[in-house]
Amino acid sequence: MLPFTRVAIIGMGLIGSSLARGVRSHMPTVRLTVADADPAVRARVAALDIADDVADGAGAAVVDADLVILCVPVGAMAAVAAEIAGELSPGAIVSDVGSVKGAVLAVLSAALPGVAVIPAHPVAGTEKSGPDAGFASLFENRWCIITPPEGADAGAVARLSAFWTRLGARVETMDAAHHDRVLAVTSHLPHLIAYSIVGTASDLEAVTRSEVIKYSAGGFRDFTRIAASDPVMWRDVFLGNREAVLELLGRFTEDLVALQRAIRWGDGDTLEALFTRTRDIRRSIIDEGQDTDTPDFGRPH
Amino acid sequence: MLPFTRVAIIGMGLIGSSLARGVRSHMPTVRLTVADADPAVRARVAALDIADDVADGAGAAVVDADLVILCVPVGAMAAVAAEIAGELSPGAIVSDVGSVKGAVLAVLSAALPGVAVIPAHPVAGTEKSGPDAGFASLFENRWCIITPPEGADAGAVARLSAFWTRLGARVETMDAAHHDRVLAVTSHLPHLIAYSIVGTASDLEAVTRSEVIKYSAGGFRDFTRIAASDPVMWRDVFLGNREAVLELLGRFTEDLVALQRAIRWGDGDTLEALFTRTRDIRRSIIDEGQDTDTPDFGRPH
Repeated sequence: MLPFTRVAIIGMGLIGSSLARGVRSHMPTVRLTVADADPAVRARVAALDIADDVADGAGAAVVDADLVILCVPVGAMAAVAAEIAGELSPGAIVSDVGSVKGAVLAVLSAALPGVAVIPAHPVAGTEKSGPDAGFASLFENRWCIITPPEGADAGAVARLSAFWTRLGARVETMDAAHHDRVLAVTSHLPHLIAYSIVGTASDLEAVTRSEVIKYSAGGFRDFTRIAASDPVMWRDVFLGNREAVLELLGRFTEDLVALQRAIRWGDGDTLEALFTRTRDIRRSIIDEGQDTDTPDFGRPH
Repeated sequence: MLPFTRVAIIGMGLIGSSLARGVRSHMPTVRLTVADADPAVRARVAALDIADDVADGAGAAVVDADLVILCVPVGAMAAVAAEIAGELSPGAIVSDVGSVKGAVLAVLSAALPGVAVIPAHPVAGTEKSGPDAGFASLFENRWCIITPPEGADAGAVARLSAFWTRLGARVETMDAAHHDRVLAVTSHLPHLIAYSIVGTASDLEAVTRSEVIKYSAGGFRDFTRIAASDPVMWRDVFLGNREAVLELLGRFTEDLVALQRAIRWGDGDTLEALFTRTRDIRRSIIDEGQDTDTPDFGRPH
């Protein structure tokens, strides 16, 4: 028994197009309509043939859908919600895939009064963007966090959960504020730091850009992967999760300054103690199936 | 014509054991003697059969060698140099693979007066440690930086360069001080930041360790790889390259604080401009053959 029969996906980037492919592959009888604001993306999606219909606008796409998933940058949610507000079928569930949940819940609830808004966030992705970057197995064995608002219909939450489970995801439920604190640690701060260090390395005088590139296999290249993620999506994440990110950034800076001090004073014991402790957490991540144990992420050698 | 015929490798961790395997595979007629301070490692190396002889001590290993390569943590170089000082053959070249070159050059030159000391640093590795982690192709298409001291014999430098070229590496020469500034950017600071953020994430109250692990695919897991690197080796790197690391850390913190300010004041343009700029450098790293273009480093999906 399918949790939904007519699904609309708005936004055909990496996540939206992966969802479309996942629906095709795991729920082939679902009627799938998609939309994207960019005509070039719409044309590409039609050529890729990963949906039944490619609508010209978000409003047209959601008519008849029993599940609508917004896969646009967090800052674009309000505009899309306004576009679809008058077009939704009675009983339709509106969800999203944004990396920020508090701000999205507020925006969608305000724009869609009386609609069952159940935000969600699949913790998955790559550094690539656009409809060609998506693939059906992106969500397999990854967690999808559903953040139902207070008083949400339990049946609607269960159906959304069943939908993500069919795509191969593991589902967890928490409130939006806690989600935003958790993701600040596991996603937002890592991205901010990666962007920052890549920026720093690009602007030095004593070391040339060409040297940074040549010798990047010493560790730097790892950071460039997530620093190649979609700029608009990530701008909106930081603006949308400001408080949790700023609080965590304060904590990180404090810890980094303590390390700086240990280096300045030649305190090898403090350094070694931290470096020993951090090994365990990678082991746990691998044991939990959230990363590969193959050396160097399995890069070719 | 082989650049060396009798090679001694002291220290059989990831790099030393990869070197041994590389010599076996690319220069099979070289007579290879190795040593390690840990009896368990020596036994394992003998069982793996990746060297002609496993000596009990560094002194015994270097007798007769025309090339000696020290593959021990930077902080252990002085002790090993003292062990081998009286045993070296006339004309033997002593090199190393440490991530820090200024401090190593000073230590080895002081301990080995009259010996041809030519430090080197292959910019390659994985997060794994020990003799089982090594593999012959580790250095292929990676850069090896040779940092000859002033007045070094050009013939000795050329022979060492030929040795690394045979292992598949690309060779560059620069002075030790410049090496230490370059590697502070491309390797040392990235490791310090990775260790630091993994430490921060482990110590939070509002987010549990289990949540950090479950949702690590949002970006955090990338940092845990290099934060799983050998603790003693990295302790010694930071103690040995203190000045360059501290200077760069000041610059990084300044840049991060500017980003923090942009987030606090909702300055999306500054964020988007940086996030757009950082994409290019990854493209250059891939074009230069220093990383894979496969999404997510080619992790299985």
